[in-house]
Amino acid sequence: MSTSSNRWQGSSIDDTAGNGLMNRRALLGRGIAIAGAVGAGGTVTGAAAEPLQDEPWSLEFGSVLPAVQTPSLFEKEVVRSLSNPNGEFRNSHARTPHHLLSGTVTPNGLHFSINHSGVPAIDPTQHKLVIHGMVRQPLEFTLETLARYPLVTRMAFVECAGNSAPMFSNEPMQVTAQAIHGLVSNAEWSGVRLSTVLDEAGLDPHATWLVAEGADAQFLDRSVPVKKAYDDALIAIYQNGEHLMPGNGYPMRLLVPGYQGNMNVKYLRRLKAVDQPAMSYFESKNYSQILPGGKTWRFHFLMEVKSFITYPSFGHELKGPGFYAISGVAYSGSGRIAKVMVSADGGNSWGEAALQAPVQDKAFARFVMPWRWDGTPAILQSRAWDEAGNVQPLRAQFVAARGQTKQPVTNPLLFPNQHYNSITSWAIDPNGQIKHVYV
Amino acid sequence: MSTSSNRWQGSSIDDTAGNGLMNRRALLGRGIAIAGAVGAGGTVTGAAAEPLQDEPWSLEFGSVLPAVQTPSLFEKEVVRSLSNPNGEFRNSHARTPHHLLSGTVTPNGLHFSINHSGVPAIDPTQHKLVIHGMVRQPLEFTLETLARYPLVTRMAFVECAGNSAPMFSNEPMQVTAQAIHGLVSNAEWSGVRLSTVLDEAGLDPHATWLVAEGADAQFLDRSVPVKKAYDDALIAIYQNGEHLMPGNGYPMRLLVPGYQGNMNVKYLRRLKAVDQPAMSYFESKNYSQILPGGKTWRFHFLMEVKSFITYPSFGHELKGPGFYAISGVAYSGSGRIAKVMVSADGGNSWGEAALQAPVQDKAFARFVMPWRWDGTPAILQSRAWDEAGNVQPLRAQFVAARGQTKQPVTNPLLFPNQHYNSITSWAIDPNGQIKHVYV
Repeated sequence: MSTSSNRWQGSSIDDTAGNGLMNRRALLGRGIAIAGAVGAGGTVTGAAAEPLQDEPWSLEFGSVLPAVQTPSLFEKEVVRSLSNPNGEFRNSHARTPHHLLSGTVTPNGLHFSINHSGVPAIDPTQHKLVIHGMVRQPLEFTLETLARYPLVTRMAFVECAGNSAPMFSNEPMQVTAQAIHGLVSNAEWSGVRLSTVLDEAGLDPHATWLVAEGADAQFLDRSVPVKKAYDDALIAIYQNGEHLMPGNGYPMRLLVPGYQGNMNVKYLRRLKAVDQPAMSYFESKNYSQILPGGKTWRFHFLMEVKSFITYPSFGHELKGPGFYAISGVAYSGSGRIAKVMVSADGGNSWGEAALQAPVQDKAFARFVMPWRWDGTPAILQSRAWDEAGNVQPLRAQFVAARGQTKQPVTNPLLFPNQHYNSITSWAIDPNGQIKHVYV
Repeated sequence: MSTSSNRWQGSSIDDTAGNGLMNRRALLGRGIAIAGAVGAGGTVTGAAAEPLQDEPWSLEFGSVLPAVQTPSLFEKEVVRSLSNPNGEFRNSHARTPHHLLSGTVTPNGLHFSINHSGVPAIDPTQHKLVIHGMVRQPLEFTLETLARYPLVTRMAFVECAGNSAPMFSNEPMQVTAQAIHGLVSNAEWSGVRLSTVLDEAGLDPHATWLVAEGADAQFLDRSVPVKKAYDDALIAIYQNGEHLMPGNGYPMRLLVPGYQGNMNVKYLRRLKAVDQPAMSYFESKNYSQILPGGKTWRFHFLMEVKSFITYPSFGHELKGPGFYAISGVAYSGSGRIAKVMVSADGGNSWGEAALQAPVQDKAFARFVMPWRWDGTPAILQSRAWDEAGNVQPLRAQFVAARGQTKQPVTNPLLFPNQHYNSITSWAIDPNGQIKHVYV
């Protein structure tokens, strides 16, 4: 049995950029030679005869179908990583294992979650949402009454403003894409347009902000511009088809697509229409980006255009030269992803990746780039553009504008750690080992 | 506190069809009055003061975030229904609870599954896929080598040819949409194009069929036309972003979008290129539609255009006259859904429902239709059209062409029970009780 072929070794006629990035058309009707051949020079009909051994699981009746199915026991490492596994009285992060996933949907079990006071166990029949303040008629909704309105269904990513904070380190941290970028996920949300319920209550034309408050023990609150409420905000009650996960806001949450995660207030119990922002903790102190000169960005809501490679990435290992498919996710708070460019030579040359259709507004786009690795050192990068013309900044540009800092950071509120959207670089050595590097 | 309003009672200026079906534009900027008002005639600014009581879950630190999150304990009834809960040595069905879901994605835990010999526990490092028969070079793939090819990501429904078999009963069965239509689900699949691996093996131009065989204890096999393989078939390895569920084919399955579920061979271990179909059990006997004259349709692969209302439906109860949003799913094996019409008067008049964008090829489309129920008897129906011009047949047409039968059926292979795609009707009585009826 042969396990390699030189069909693609050394070829460059189909290259689209340096160091082996391949034209997507190179894949059409042409071999890549990853699979092992069966037999030597097999003939046309059935030479392989019965090449398969019957494995133990084929020889016995399988297990009972469960009422709710769960992943294979062989996928035990595909879990969220936890910053507070013992439930101490502080905030908790559960990060999505992007380096082990594909596609664009984040399965509900693995959607990231940040909870500042644990996960409340809310009885959906008792939970209430009140809309009050500058409205003609204050209103109270239960889950049952809210769910009677027409639901809108859409894909949207939600990203913590502090996602990718490890990228502010002045030395590249040797951790997975999960540890670096795990505070963003993408799901199909179904909910009621926020504008629908505001119209029900009769919003005062002078109201410019809504203070959204959650029913968690912190009563987490954020101010949301009325303009956003009438653009595309929802009160979401379903996530990938089923009711929201407890960590993601069950039984109802605000969804403000493209705005920083913390504003998508979970366990939503109150919307107060006002004419100025509340200046709450999470908008006046935390989630305010610190700039190198010591000033901060407040009310900087939009999550910028971004992408990162999920495969291959730190934690993977390439098993020798040959063909691989580089893959990752891209997204922008400003709309649809327009294109993603990939480099295998640390940014010296770039080739355009394939985007999986349909590319949706303020949602993950999955990109794929065929690559023939020749076994020499390579540095993989991705860079995304959105339909509004925004582009992911190069790291040198980003650091000049936004700063970086020595690690470890004792008080993250004193150092830049918000809204990182520059490039992530994975260096591959001749042994197929992968490191996180800055280029 | 008032809980009703007459703003919409008796109005008909915004109706789009009989018995209260509303023009979608009626919702824009106009109240519906489902929510309870807070206070009496509240004034513009903050009259409601602090209307909310702090519930127990807001007064204590919540629970620890788990590595894999699961639905709320209050959602315990949202599970698959099982036809063989004790794992007897026969086939097993696990049905999706459509009447409790929304949106278009079926969460992985709730994706339907049929297994004829239980769920095999496959070690993904030992599983192999062989491509042989009429090929230039037989090939063997592991999960690792298969996953190195560029993955394609797409939404697709999978539906058992026997889904909706209860609709062949000559009396309408009083069961949920889950019991009737629970053998269809919709997910985002990522996998390798079947054409890519066939090209690797060098398919003989005279090969017209592929015999696909699974590694379950039955070695379930089906014949798939080579034409379909080169159209849009995949070997799927991810489902909604994570590896396939064990019940859905882990670690790899065939995905032939729009073709009957059984052909999407799970646990795929072999593809043999041949020049005639295998005439396997599941294509020559089971999954062959029996026609009233006693003849059968064999090799009738395509799942026809279909829709059904998931809310309100059997098992729900309407809590009095007023506004409701009728909602359901539509799909077609021939392409995209073009439109869905909804009736509230048993098919006398129809209004066009809103479809949630983007409507995707051979995937669920979620439709929504605003409805003002006046408390009199109503019969809700949906009817879908696809972009190829196919339309869901009315029940009388369908029964005339395809038959129905007295229940219970002792041997389902002797009676029509395949490819039901006609209309489902839910009758609502003045008490808000819902029955399944034939119209």
